[in-house]
Amino acid sequence: MTARFIALYETPADPAAFIRHYRDVHIPLARQLPGLRRYTISRDLVAVRGDSPYYLVAELEWDTMDELHTAFASPEGRTTAADAAHLQELAAVRSMIFTVDESVL
Amino acid sequence: MTARFIALYETPADPAAFIRHYRDVHIPLARQLPGLRRYTISRDLVAVRGDSPYYLVAELEWDTMDELHTAFASPEGRTTAADAAHLQELAAVRSMIFTVDESVL
Repeated sequence: MTARFIALYETPADPAAFIRHYRDVHIPLARQLPGLRRYTISRDLVAVRGDSPYYLVAELEWDTMDELHTAFASPEGRTTAADAAHLQELAAVRSMIFTVDESVL
Repeated sequence: MTARFIALYETPADPAAFIRHYRDVHIPLARQLPGLRRYTISRDLVAVRGDSPYYLVAELEWDTMDELHTAFASPEGRTTAADAAHLQELAAVRSMIFTVDESVL
């Protein structure tokens, strides 16, 4: 089953600085993660229920949870994690990993 | 560009009652949404950064934002939304829609 990492960023104090860093630094680093199959980011978020929408939703997919863990533990993974720690200073984030269950449809 | 609906549920006060309702009532309703291309739910969530992980992450995809809006406005969409309002009494939720940008990988 597919493994997914999702990062949910709240609206930054300085959106321009956050997006600049995310686009120019974080994406180029995360793209190099070994085994990465899919990497999507959100555009034009609109809330349906609950609080205001997140500012950015990023999702990265691997074929298996083992490959995700291998990617996170790789040199590229450690560099990306260090940059994520910096991003967290620009925007509050809630991120998690999970297995994707496709059996519902 | 693909359109996605994401619903992020916090841990319910009564997880068994929430999952029972989600599985036995909500999934069968949401599966009938016109034009739905993909419907995934999370298993074995583990937090990476920020607060504790959400309890359940559900993602529903349509080919276009127009088709998503058509589905939400349909009779099936209204029935599913009414049930989502009930689910919200069982677990706090934050849900939103967005366009998926695949250009980053």
